[in-house]
Amino acid sequence: MLPMNTSIRHLLTLDRLNAEQLNSLLDQAEALSPQALGAPLSPPRLADKTVVNLFFEPSTRTRSSFELAAKRLGATVLNFDMANSSTRKGETLADTLYTLEAMGGDIFVVRHSGDGVVAQLAEICAPRTCLVNAGDGKSAHPTQGLLDMLTIRQHKGRDFSGLKVAIIGDIRHSRVARSDLHALRILGAGEVRLAAPESLLPNADVMQGFRVVDSADAAIEGVDVVMTLRLQRERMEDGLVSSMEAYFRDWGITPERLALAKPDAIVMHPGPMNRGVEIADAVADGPQSVIRQQVSNGVAARMAVLSALHAESA
Amino acid sequence: MLPMNTSIRHLLTLDRLNAEQLNSLLDQAEALSPQALGAPLSPPRLADKTVVNLFFEPSTRTRSSFELAAKRLGATVLNFDMANSSTRKGETLADTLYTLEAMGGDIFVVRHSGDGVVAQLAEICAPRTCLVNAGDGKSAHPTQGLLDMLTIRQHKGRDFSGLKVAIIGDIRHSRVARSDLHALRILGAGEVRLAAPESLLPNADVMQGFRVVDSADAAIEGVDVVMTLRLQRERMEDGLVSSMEAYFRDWGITPERLALAKPDAIVMHPGPMNRGVEIADAVADGPQSVIRQQVSNGVAARMAVLSALHAESA
Amino acid sequence: MLPMNTSIRHLLTLDRLNAEQLNSLLDQAEALSPQALGAPLSPPRLADKTVVNLFFEPSTRTRSSFELAAKRLGATVLNFDMANSSTRKGETLADTLYTLEAMGGDIFVVRHSGDGVVAQLAEICAPRTCLVNAGDGKSAHPTQGLLDMLTIRQHKGRDFSGLKVAIIGDIRHSRVARSDLHALRILGAGEVRLAAPESLLPNADVMQGFRVVDSADAAIEGVDVVMTLRLQRERMEDGLVSSMEAYFRDWGITPERLALAKPDAIVMHPGPMNRGVEIADAVADGPQSVIRQQVSNGVAARMAVLSALHAESA
Repeated sequence: MLPMNTSIRHLLTLDRLNAEQLNSLLDQAEALSPQALGAPLSPPRLADKTVVNLFFEPSTRTRSSFELAAKRLGATVLNFDMANSSTRKGETLADTLYTLEAMGGDIFVVRHSGDGVVAQLAEICAPRTCLVNAGDGKSAHPTQGLLDMLTIRQHKGRDFSGLKVAIIGDIRHSRVARSDLHALRILGAGEVRLAAPESLLPNADVMQGFRVVDSADAAIEGVDVVMTLRLQRERMEDGLVSSMEAYFRDWGITPERLALAKPDAIVMHPGPMNRGVEIADAVADGPQSVIRQQVSNGVAARMAVLSALHAESA
Repeated sequence: MLPMNTSIRHLLTLDRLNAEQLNSLLDQAEALSPQALGAPLSPPRLADKTVVNLFFEPSTRTRSSFELAAKRLGATVLNFDMANSSTRKGETLADTLYTLEAMGGDIFVVRHSGDGVVAQLAEICAPRTCLVNAGDGKSAHPTQGLLDMLTIRQHKGRDFSGLKVAIIGDIRHSRVARSDLHALRILGAGEVRLAAPESLLPNADVMQGFRVVDSADAAIEGVDVVMTLRLQRERMEDGLVSSMEAYFRDWGITPERLALAKPDAIVMHPGPMNRGVEIADAVADGPQSVIRQQVSNGVAARMAVLSALHAESA
Repeated sequence: MLPMNTSIRHLLTLDRLNAEQLNSLLDQAEALSPQALGAPLSPPRLADKTVVNLFFEPSTRTRSSFELAAKRLGATVLNFDMANSSTRKGETLADTLYTLEAMGGDIFVVRHSGDGVVAQLAEICAPRTCLVNAGDGKSAHPTQGLLDMLTIRQHKGRDFSGLKVAIIGDIRHSRVARSDLHALRILGAGEVRLAAPESLLPNADVMQGFRVVDSADAAIEGVDVVMTLRLQRERMEDGLVSSMEAYFRDWGITPERLALAKPDAIVMHPGPMNRGVEIADAVADGPQSVIRQQVSNGVAARMAVLSALHAESA
């Protein structure tokens, strides 16, 4: 069912995939949408596999989404909230991986605060191990990129060449934005505009090839897709934003601001939302919001990824 | 197997059920007792359903009981200990629900410290969602009420009209007591006596139709059923009880006090017990104690409830 | 498949087993090795059983190993991290057990900081309950003993009579060492040498029948098996070791030190490792290390134990 060219060893970042591979994963996710919501999958694809969720940062949403995806594929699932684990006993991350490999873990879904940590694990893991990056530092969150592209495609079609996308908010600290940018570049999105307070813009290399505009209004005008990002409250303590009120006024997605986009523009947010900070209630709950659809697509996209992984020895 | 009239959308509180519905749920629970203890259930009733345990208060016993009930019905189960979750990241409770609905959650088992919170979620949830109140504030704990009635019925029969019941202890803060009172009223219990230190009696409306007596002895005399309630240790810090020793002397269920009840009276406690505070060891472990049976009935009652839920779109 | 004489009610400690029983458990574990790594087991042996992991001390590795073992046998599994449980509400340990028994728990895997606590639970549990000690205080960790013996046997054969074993490190606080000593005695190991700083040697009764030597070099010389133990960092705070550096110099397993053993000696560690404290990287990751194999054998050994448990009423 899944073409061989989307068989991948690990999913660390989207930017090494080509458009064909990426679209093939999205096709798979689309096909698995009913199963993602609970329709039976027969035969189960991962019945003999053990999926280990190894989360070194707290997460409810991403961990649950992977847990459901793995269970719906028939896998055995182990969850590790590494806040309460033997890493506290001084064990190295590598030894934690080796231990769980030795217990029979096949696929490791890893979230870590360190940039590149999952890629480092890919260097040292066993030949039979497959790794999925569930978010590393500020670097990448590839399954979020996939689910976002799936959501866009469902509304705007497979051809991204005429697509105008605005990404607004804390791009600097967002691994979501980075993976979305990877995917939008690969899929050839027509125009991508980035907008954020100067303190929340990323380094130049991240923005290369995209258009940086200096206001939310300029970003939104005439676009097909508005992606807003979570503002972490600690950014205010860090002095990167002056106040939540000022941020909302300048960068929040309000109905007035959204009216500048195309009438059929969709609004996306990776969650969890700060209502009244980066997005107004009327937008979050309004007819153009596809935020819940993103969540549903997340389970389907993760099922597609877990199905496509293919270890060397397999 | 389950009559249509016990098909319910949500279980928020028992007091909207009629006697027929309540007895039908109890009949179901009785029928599921072997499966509650691990006998195979074939075919599984909830094989395509995802049950989400969403606990905003710490719980071992109730959460596990629901988890087992759901697993024994063949459901996929997700557990959320919301102490460590993205609600800490500022997400609203409604958004947490919407997110988990979007992931494919069908049945949500919710515990929350706020009175009426589960009912509020029922106002905003998706048409395909069913909710079970696993304890909200001081308001209700309907599955505990069900398991308590099942336990009484197993010992005293289906006709509650001649039944004398004493409820003793911290009624004021007890959602268990409220759900028991709802059920006893619906099932037409002959006489219900309430006894507690004045500081632990509830508002008048809760007690309406029941008899308040001013001592544990007066409550227990001649009854068929003695229900005692957990005294939370913080009540002493709050100044509501003078000391654990004094409480035990005045309100604890001792063998001497129990001797005032009918010889075949049963003793119930919702757990976890404070031995030597609200109940003496000799009573908790004695021949009249049905406390462990209550726990077993809890799994059966929850299986019955989960089986009876019926979403609008289903 | 499993001879009747290895049917056991509980597994509390290895020292009540005879050599035949112990070898039979090891044979079972060997036979289950493919299933331990995920090969399908048909029919599942514990399909109607509920395994409760009841951990009163934090654990990642042992808890996961038991969880996987139980799931691969087809059991329903409940995990309890009792740090966040109703024992905090003052419930006794016995009542926690009674409650989980009443919910239908069949097999309880218990870890507790108190010596002998699991044996105490065995005194009071229901006739249908089986208990596995997953580590109690400093007393015993029998499944670790089993997996260690399985690992030795795979490298050195079933006849332990000519086997020379060195156990080096914090023997005093190690339940692993105690269970290994039990097993080595039962299996008739030719010579067992113990070596540790004086402050980390156990009481005389633990060492009886074994040879205590006063340096790591003397322990290792000419042995077939080198077992090193985790040094808990708090030992330094307790003043039992002077510094991690000094400990490594005197007691750490380095390539130089290992060269004193037989050329085909194997090196074992129960994990999690403090690299550079009790073991050098070059040894931990070297060709003589069987540390990851121990972890794999852990799942198989626990599957064998869970399969061998036989309640009175069964």
